[in-house]
Amino acid sequence: MDRIGVVDTMFARIDMGSIAENRLAAMEGFGERFEVVRVTVPGFKDLAVAARRLIEKEDCAIVIACGMPGGAELDQACAHEAAQGIMLAQVLTGTHILEVFVHTQEESDPVKFEELCRNRVGSHAVNAYWMLYAPEELRKRAGQGIRQGGPDTGPLLA
Amino acid sequence: MDRIGVVDTMFARIDMGSIAENRLAAMEGFGERFEVVRVTVPGFKDLAVAARRLIEKEDCAIVIACGMPGGAELDQACAHEAAQGIMLAQVLTGTHILEVFVHTQEESDPVKFEELCRNRVGSHAVNAYWMLYAPEELRKRAGQGIRQGGPDTGPLLA
Amino acid sequence: MDRIGVVDTMFARIDMGSIAENRLAAMEGFGERFEVVRVTVPGFKDLAVAARRLIEKEDCAIVIACGMPGGAELDQACAHEAAQGIMLAQVLTGTHILEVFVHTQEESDPVKFEELCRNRVGSHAVNAYWMLYAPEELRKRAGQGIRQGGPDTGPLLA
Amino acid sequence: MDRIGVVDTMFARIDMGSIAENRLAAMEGFGERFEVVRVTVPGFKDLAVAARRLIEKEDCAIVIACGMPGGAELDQACAHEAAQGIMLAQVLTGTHILEVFVHTQEESDPVKFEELCRNRVGSHAVNAYWMLYAPEELRKRAGQGIRQGGPDTGPLLA
Amino acid sequence: MDRIGVVDTMFARIDMGSIAENRLAAMEGFGERFEVVRVTVPGFKDLAVAARRLIEKEDCAIVIACGMPGGAELDQACAHEAAQGIMLAQVLTGTHILEVFVHTQEESDPVKFEELCRNRVGSHAVNAYWMLYAPEELRKRAGQGIRQGGPDTGPLLA
Repeated sequence: MDRIGVVDTMFARIDMGSIAENRLAAMEGFGERFEVVRVTVPGFKDLAVAARRLIEKEDCAIVIACGMPGGAELDQACAHEAAQGIMLAQVLTGTHILEVFVHTQEESDPVKFEELCRNRVGSHAVNAYWMLYAPEELRKRAGQGIRQGGPDTGPLLA
Repeated sequence: MDRIGVVDTMFARIDMGSIAENRLAAMEGFGERFEVVRVTVPGFKDLAVAARRLIEKEDCAIVIACGMPGGAELDQACAHEAAQGIMLAQVLTGTHILEVFVHTQEESDPVKFEELCRNRVGSHAVNAYWMLYAPEELRKRAGQGIRQGGPDTGPLLA
Repeated sequence: MDRIGVVDTMFARIDMGSIAENRLAAMEGFGERFEVVRVTVPGFKDLAVAARRLIEKEDCAIVIACGMPGGAELDQACAHEAAQGIMLAQVLTGTHILEVFVHTQEESDPVKFEELCRNRVGSHAVNAYWMLYAPEELRKRAGQGIRQGGPDTGPLLA
Repeated sequence: MDRIGVVDTMFARIDMGSIAENRLAAMEGFGERFEVVRVTVPGFKDLAVAARRLIEKEDCAIVIACGMPGGAELDQACAHEAAQGIMLAQVLTGTHILEVFVHTQEESDPVKFEELCRNRVGSHAVNAYWMLYAPEELRKRAGQGIRQGGPDTGPLLA
Repeated sequence: MDRIGVVDTMFARIDMGSIAENRLAAMEGFGERFEVVRVTVPGFKDLAVAARRLIEKEDCAIVIACGMPGGAELDQACAHEAAQGIMLAQVLTGTHILEVFVHTQEESDPVKFEELCRNRVGSHAVNAYWMLYAPEELRKRAGQGIRQGGPDTGPLLA
């Protein structure tokens, strides 16, 4: 059975990992064709190596890495380092790790932020599934201005 | 038969991958000397590892990686991370990956932007072809102020 | 017996390594299930390679890397380089290295700063222990807004 | 026979690679002790992997990598990525790659800029030669404020 | 016999490498337990790979890498790239490379700057020696606010 990895943090203020898990559990083939392996780490700087471990020690075919950076300057510098680590882990392992970051400055209203977060994590869970089992779904949306979290912008010259 | 890889995104608002594919399909030797392998990923941060996979799993001799970063500060930070990933994938594999990014702030008029995008992607498709089959074409243009997308600037002291 | 690595600096103005050591010495299984290996380096840019050495030469299963960057612009640039090095060492070794940085600009009162530092180092010592022996402790705090050093922020929509 | 690699770009507005080639051709031992291998790539982001290829596929003992970044903010970000790539290629191969960048904002007068460029490329061609065949020339200039392109500044306390 | 590497630049305006060499030559065991291997490169961007070569080709157990970045914005960006390269070389080789940079903006008076430089290089030469032969000297100074170049700041709550 294939394995999809999910890693999230104690730092985030929404249980992002469970959103990803639940979305994947609703996809066709869950529990038969693929299962989900989940781990939680302290903060987003721990995501990259946790993803590598899911790929190499847990044999995950793809990983969803969830984090929620704050808006202060120091937080943004840390988010940049965390994102570079995820990039490095991807390129070194040759395996996709979908970086799902929701920045707290994207939306100030808590209810809307929670909705944004839920949508983004959910969309990337679907993307991960498509990347493994239905790449043609991605191919037919090439250049369509697809967004995760907010509404799609659509193609430039529709 | 050689293989040229093309990877683009759902995020972009123009189907950049098809522009590259079509341009390559018009080059001499298409379907005989070389073929094109294409994949679409969610966003530009997924390009680097997708390019590595095209090189290592699909045996591509060169890859064209297409993305369309937005102009907001957060988008630019992400574009920087994506570009660093492509650089890393190039150096680690020892294989050229042409980064073809069109930044939305480069041109505000949609029709002109589309033209800029089409020209840049097309020019880089030709560059990829030349790098494989006609390096002397690059050599004779050394220091000529060649641009992809807009008009060439020409040599400094013409 | 497992080994937990602790590395700190002469540069810091608080003996961060001893805080980590003492906290770990109070955890269940200390001296039986696990021991602590400690090393001190000149400054925070020396932490990354010291951590790698603890992992590879001293066989540590996880490392706690403690630093205290100053607030000047040049210090922050150096802190960024140090953090990128720790990220690199993590991803290359596939082993968690908890980056425990206390930035001097976080708190101007020396007594409060010392308390912040003590709390952060202590919390990360516990995190390291949990990551080895009780991952379920991390899992049940996913998305709970857990902080190290100051009070937890709690979940967004409690 | 040893090989010295030279890589430059179509993007630059001066034929930097030919300046390097000509300078090396005037050095003692050219064509006997060493030869020059040259390649031209589209832009400066392609230099790093081209240099790696010159080292590994063409067996070059050292490489001179020439680029001409523009002054716009986006150009500077790209130059930073290109320089990081050259650094990575150097460290990974264990072989020197002399980064010879001339930034267009360094000098606004075209004739003076061309002179600056010619001097910098030429000086680095000599440096490459010295690094291979006369390291004592570098050693005796340690701390002498040697510059490439403009006049040397000399030692601080002369 | 062990080997300690020293690398410096022609670009610097003080012969930093000789300061390091002289300080090491005054340490116990010089010429018996350890010797010094020195190399000079053009500029600070050449330090990282030179350090790697000292480690791998010259069998150095530790390296002192000396540079003197200027204060202009472009110089600072280059210093950042140079520092990242040294970090990378450290982590990849698993060997300490002490980055000894003296930034020209740290002190405007030439005589005081020279003193700062001499003190910093000398202190790091001692650090390198301690790291090889007396790690307990570092350990007992943990968290003591030790500085290289200027006066130590001491512990926060003395």
